[in-house]
Amino acid sequence: MTFTHLPPDVAELCERTRRFIREVVIDAEPAPGERLDQVTRDRLQAAAKEAGVFAPHVPKEYGGQGVPIEHWSPILQEAGYSPIGPSALNCMAPDEGNMHMLNLIATEEQKHRYLVPLAAGDIRSCFGMTEPHPGAGSDPAALRTKAVRTSDGWIIDGHKRFTSGAVGAGFCIVMARTPAVDGSPEGATMFLVDMTNPGLKVGEAIHTIDRSIDGGHPHLSIKDCFVPDAAVLGEVGLGFRYAQVRLGPARLTHCMRWLGLARRALDIALDRAGRRELFGGPIDSLGLAQNLISDSVIDIETSDALISKTATLLHTDPKAGSAMSSIAKVHCSEAVFRVVDRAIQICGGDGVSDGLPLAQYLNEVRPFRIYDGPNETHKWAIARRASAGRSAAVRAGERYQGDAVVGRGGGA
Amino acid sequence: MTFTHLPPDVAELCERTRRFIREVVIDAEPAPGERLDQVTRDRLQAAAKEAGVFAPHVPKEYGGQGVPIEHWSPILQEAGYSPIGPSALNCMAPDEGNMHMLNLIATEEQKHRYLVPLAAGDIRSCFGMTEPHPGAGSDPAALRTKAVRTSDGWIIDGHKRFTSGAVGAGFCIVMARTPAVDGSPEGATMFLVDMTNPGLKVGEAIHTIDRSIDGGHPHLSIKDCFVPDAAVLGEVGLGFRYAQVRLGPARLTHCMRWLGLARRALDIALDRAGRRELFGGPIDSLGLAQNLISDSVIDIETSDALISKTATLLHTDPKAGSAMSSIAKVHCSEAVFRVVDRAIQICGGDGVSDGLPLAQYLNEVRPFRIYDGPNETHKWAIARRASAGRSAAVRAGERYQGDAVVGRGGGA
Amino acid sequence: MTFTHLPPDVAELCERTRRFIREVVIDAEPAPGERLDQVTRDRLQAAAKEAGVFAPHVPKEYGGQGVPIEHWSPILQEAGYSPIGPSALNCMAPDEGNMHMLNLIATEEQKHRYLVPLAAGDIRSCFGMTEPHPGAGSDPAALRTKAVRTSDGWIIDGHKRFTSGAVGAGFCIVMARTPAVDGSPEGATMFLVDMTNPGLKVGEAIHTIDRSIDGGHPHLSIKDCFVPDAAVLGEVGLGFRYAQVRLGPARLTHCMRWLGLARRALDIALDRAGRRELFGGPIDSLGLAQNLISDSVIDIETSDALISKTATLLHTDPKAGSAMSSIAKVHCSEAVFRVVDRAIQICGGDGVSDGLPLAQYLNEVRPFRIYDGPNETHKWAIARRASAGRSAAVRAGERYQGDAVVGRGGGA
Amino acid sequence: MTFTHLPPDVAELCERTRRFIREVVIDAEPAPGERLDQVTRDRLQAAAKEAGVFAPHVPKEYGGQGVPIEHWSPILQEAGYSPIGPSALNCMAPDEGNMHMLNLIATEEQKHRYLVPLAAGDIRSCFGMTEPHPGAGSDPAALRTKAVRTSDGWIIDGHKRFTSGAVGAGFCIVMARTPAVDGSPEGATMFLVDMTNPGLKVGEAIHTIDRSIDGGHPHLSIKDCFVPDAAVLGEVGLGFRYAQVRLGPARLTHCMRWLGLARRALDIALDRAGRRELFGGPIDSLGLAQNLISDSVIDIETSDALISKTATLLHTDPKAGSAMSSIAKVHCSEAVFRVVDRAIQICGGDGVSDGLPLAQYLNEVRPFRIYDGPNETHKWAIARRASAGRSAAVRAGERYQGDAVVGRGGGA
Repeated sequence: MTFTHLPPDVAELCERTRRFIREVVIDAEPAPGERLDQVTRDRLQAAAKEAGVFAPHVPKEYGGQGVPIEHWSPILQEAGYSPIGPSALNCMAPDEGNMHMLNLIATEEQKHRYLVPLAAGDIRSCFGMTEPHPGAGSDPAALRTKAVRTSDGWIIDGHKRFTSGAVGAGFCIVMARTPAVDGSPEGATMFLVDMTNPGLKVGEAIHTIDRSIDGGHPHLSIKDCFVPDAAVLGEVGLGFRYAQVRLGPARLTHCMRWLGLARRALDIALDRAGRRELFGGPIDSLGLAQNLISDSVIDIETSDALISKTATLLHTDPKAGSAMSSIAKVHCSEAVFRVVDRAIQICGGDGVSDGLPLAQYLNEVRPFRIYDGPNETHKWAIARRASAGRSAAVRAGERYQGDAVVGRGGGA
Repeated sequence: MTFTHLPPDVAELCERTRRFIREVVIDAEPAPGERLDQVTRDRLQAAAKEAGVFAPHVPKEYGGQGVPIEHWSPILQEAGYSPIGPSALNCMAPDEGNMHMLNLIATEEQKHRYLVPLAAGDIRSCFGMTEPHPGAGSDPAALRTKAVRTSDGWIIDGHKRFTSGAVGAGFCIVMARTPAVDGSPEGATMFLVDMTNPGLKVGEAIHTIDRSIDGGHPHLSIKDCFVPDAAVLGEVGLGFRYAQVRLGPARLTHCMRWLGLARRALDIALDRAGRRELFGGPIDSLGLAQNLISDSVIDIETSDALISKTATLLHTDPKAGSAMSSIAKVHCSEAVFRVVDRAIQICGGDGVSDGLPLAQYLNEVRPFRIYDGPNETHKWAIARRASAGRSAAVRAGERYQGDAVVGRGGGA
Repeated sequence: MTFTHLPPDVAELCERTRRFIREVVIDAEPAPGERLDQVTRDRLQAAAKEAGVFAPHVPKEYGGQGVPIEHWSPILQEAGYSPIGPSALNCMAPDEGNMHMLNLIATEEQKHRYLVPLAAGDIRSCFGMTEPHPGAGSDPAALRTKAVRTSDGWIIDGHKRFTSGAVGAGFCIVMARTPAVDGSPEGATMFLVDMTNPGLKVGEAIHTIDRSIDGGHPHLSIKDCFVPDAAVLGEVGLGFRYAQVRLGPARLTHCMRWLGLARRALDIALDRAGRRELFGGPIDSLGLAQNLISDSVIDIETSDALISKTATLLHTDPKAGSAMSSIAKVHCSEAVFRVVDRAIQICGGDGVSDGLPLAQYLNEVRPFRIYDGPNETHKWAIARRASAGRSAAVRAGERYQGDAVVGRGGGA
Repeated sequence: MTFTHLPPDVAELCERTRRFIREVVIDAEPAPGERLDQVTRDRLQAAAKEAGVFAPHVPKEYGGQGVPIEHWSPILQEAGYSPIGPSALNCMAPDEGNMHMLNLIATEEQKHRYLVPLAAGDIRSCFGMTEPHPGAGSDPAALRTKAVRTSDGWIIDGHKRFTSGAVGAGFCIVMARTPAVDGSPEGATMFLVDMTNPGLKVGEAIHTIDRSIDGGHPHLSIKDCFVPDAAVLGEVGLGFRYAQVRLGPARLTHCMRWLGLARRALDIALDRAGRRELFGGPIDSLGLAQNLISDSVIDIETSDALISKTATLLHTDPKAGSAMSSIAKVHCSEAVFRVVDRAIQICGGDGVSDGLPLAQYLNEVRPFRIYDGPNETHKWAIARRASAGRSAAVRAGERYQGDAVVGRGGGA
């Protein structure tokens, strides 16, 4: 990855980030299957601040590097070159997406209370959206958690799961269904809830195969959970709209980070393929390795290009950008998985052992084909949007082209 | 495809081109398997001039629209929405690539004699590079055609094949091996040869399955072919370098045009999928069609993004751009083929009949996986470049990552 | 392909067929895009009788070789090694399927009148099933053609299309909807109709890309078409059941024949890959060719194995065999297409030209992914059968395994 | 899977095995990531003996069920339906392959000492072949471990790794390079070495992602390891030949066992897809799930068919069978991986959690694409064999078909 096409200050930050990850972070990586511990995390974040690479996506006033979204990609890819890089730089999910949303819609007081310590890495956060079936899963509209109005606030009741980052978090942004009140529409509302709130309890853990999101993916039990009016994030009833605001970029930053890890996997494979030993054996099958390598290069470059295109679109046309982020999510998550899988193959037996980190990388990226909406759900939506768009165009006067020409071919 | 992210004048030209293709050109398309005839071609080109959409890539001084290369993609995609669109707009291969090169390296006199009528659509051209094995094929360095120095010019001898566009062309740019003379290095040289030159003879035709390049892909016999010094294009001995100048963009404009045809194929499929009939049968298998549709959308968007990225790179860093054009060529040619193939499938029996144009589209795009260098040759080069780049990085101090950690996994 | 595992007489017929195809038939192949003419067809059939390889699937009493269905595969693969081989051996669709069905359910008189000349190659036949939407397409149950009872026979009215083989055929087996009469159930009935019947008229041709089925795929207009009672094939009202009897084996013999052509394509590619020239260029990319070759070998061997398994099953358990033939159809049609496509790629520019027959082979096998039910329709049915089978097993006492273990993972 | 096509006694054993696995073994499965403990293993093996399903592949005289190799597949698939099934039935790698080889080439005394307790499940075994690079990896010929002759035996020195099953094994079959002695050829020899031999030491463990092979995959250090003449397995110098005898069937039994696990994964996915919840969300995307399901059914059926074909061939033509086992290994290992991966996808978030066993299944089957020779090495060999076979056929008189017809297409 070269940075020559970027504005000089962004290019410089990319370079700095690259060096920080490769010279500082990689040495601190835990063994495969292990998690980043808090002490190391704190040490790395301090070093990142020192190196001027901390929180690239965060406005400078909150201690970040103030990079605009259309330039996040090369930086987050450099961060993702290490599975713990995004944590070290405080740009990991779900915190990164929460910071982005808080910055856009929180009140000054909320920013002071939640965004400031979050941006500084002093606390972590989580996002309470997904629920057990038949609640909000890949279809947010099925939301079952409810908040009812009291005289001076709200009482929330519900059950969340896959609440990434919840263990050890400082607060949770809870999505709950709210009735039409005081002129606000019926719909969903986001609430900022401290994890110390007695109505909130981290429940049963869900042990998944990934290790890079601090705080796991546990259940969250919400019972008689009182929050004051000041806990409402944005406006009452607009929760689904905000969720979209959060989801588009959040999907895309996942793509950026994991694409960085795919580049790492390819580098490991290239280092291995440069030897006289391939697939754990002699070099005869070099051509087969070249096939795998070129397929991975193509996967990486198409992903990179699609991410750039989507990031620009999110900036200029958020609605189109959000639709494109769905396409990017499917393509990148599949591409990244294939790149890691091919790297394993090139490394032979070592590839499936703990001697190399590749098998763990596969565990990190496999869930991304499911998290943030399973790819099949996205594909269904992509097809529907394409069909609807084309129908609208035909209704607006475009020539309908689905009829076979009679007498020339198959038409009835 | 929306044009909102483009400069207003480019966006307007895109719109104009889109309307011209859909309202004028499509009605003139020949039946599947037939070619565009000269009379229709002339009529369409006149109309394109009238509509202000002629030769988008050509500088205004030569009668074109003067669009810079980084904005060619949306326009050439609109042109390619019809298989005869690029001919109608005079931006078809090989003429388009030849115009690009003439504009960059021809003398004023050469421009006047060759570029002016070519840009105006008054003549067509060809490019004499590929030779029968063991000559210049996907490896240009194997060039066998030779030119020897005479007192006032050169005598060329050789045999070309797959000389796209040769039948009916006004001139040919012939690549020939030249010795070191007058301070010029030994190497290859490009010569502008009139097709009326008695030393040049169009030979045996090669009947391929595509129909959209006017002038076929015949053999070319070059025997005792005298040309004066003024026929040398650029400098003696720099032919291979110029060929690279031509190839990078030429590969990419192929991607642009064929991507336009892929969009057409998807539109046909979407029109068909909007009915109650699918795969020539009932609608039950709609989900399977949605799978095909979303895969095609993803193929189209990744191709579009990669083309944009490459076009920008060709502008800012031609060497990196040329390497990236190799990646774009492989991805786009495979993606476009898949999109057309899926569209056929969605249309059932009609898809493989002449009642719809899809089967012919497959014949148009299948060769693109081979022309301009078979994808496998590109993949081999892509893998080699990736390996070489990584080796260089490791030699320059990057951490070698191919060793399994002893005691933790597989390493010896 | 070796024949050592076969009974000696079958192995010998395989060898004889192989020699006949390679020594006699290949020399008579028409140029790409052309059809086998009647004179050559007659000459080849006479030679095939002489060589003792004619009509391998037909009982000896009707002039065939009397091979049982479980051994058809190696023989039909040898026949299919040439696109005109099955015609030369009189085992091409749709005649081969019609012979199979006539042999199973026709009366002696019907056999004498239709099967005898058909088996001898004196006439050809067609099968009138597919109708324009919304009639019988991939769902036969949508049948719209109707027959009504008269005092001494039936009057049929309807419209068929994709009636493969109709031009020049001697008779058609027409599927028509019939009411409950004389104790027969309401349903579909098959009628043997002479093509000279004034109520039958070959209509508009459908020009498809394949050339190997003699007699095209035209529309068929059926109007006031009277046939006597003796024209009923099998029993009144059982037409759908018979169609299944015909379809299972017919699908599978398609697989056998096209698999033979895939072997031919691979041989062409192997011959080419054995040279110093690859992809129309130098040999450097050999490893990429090896990748294509091994993928093709795997496609061929899995197809061959699945065909054998299905043929055995059709013999021992026709219902299970018919379901398996659906799986075989999807896999083989996709596999065969890939094998031909890869062979084209290996042959470079020649692969997409008429200098080699490969591009035409692609046109022959592409429709097979659609004919006999588009693969997506089959896949839908395959998934439904798998789901239904598993549900039944669970209802019958098998352990339901879809619940996540609570407290260990994700389950609510 | 139905057993109706099998001989009655085999079908009955299949049924019995199926019931035993589903009613007894599944309940004893360890949690994902854990291993089968010795006590449970012993209990299950005792129960298997009781149920008459123990050691299906072992001759009855050694306590097995005496099933011939061509009928192993349905039984081993039933065993593999549980990841611990093969251990419970004592037909797991590497023991199963070792028993097979001992039965074929061991002396009566050796059988008594090693085969009898191994077949009874009283001890386990390992196979010392793979070495650290540049020793014997996917190319056995690079063998570096050496044995030298003494007056009354041999002294072996060397270093093995990936010695599956070594921890806790009773003996190891060690491959070592031996000189030409006493009329025996130079080559490799197999030695039966007790794990208690002071010259043998289990070394560094290699932590891989699979859990189902008891005894891990450690390094093995062999130093001054004396064994008497009676330790030679088979004849001196014929080790490579015996390794082939072992490898063909061993590869294939891997395919059988893992195919059973693929069936299990598909059942889990089908159970999940039968609900109103898909991909962790609503049912809208059912069509996408049907696509995954049908692809998995096709993968399973092609694998099953190819295994049967190969098993028959190993019986009738071992050399051809061994070549085919290479094809089967590549196809089945890729197919099984895809089936498990798709099942994960269908189950959404639960699929990547410990709540379902699927993520662990992926870890079990991923290495199979590498173990027993990486698929790319096999593919290279498959392509080479195909090319060599075709060249030989052409030399023997088959028509060379690689030339383009001049004047018709591309030929020079």
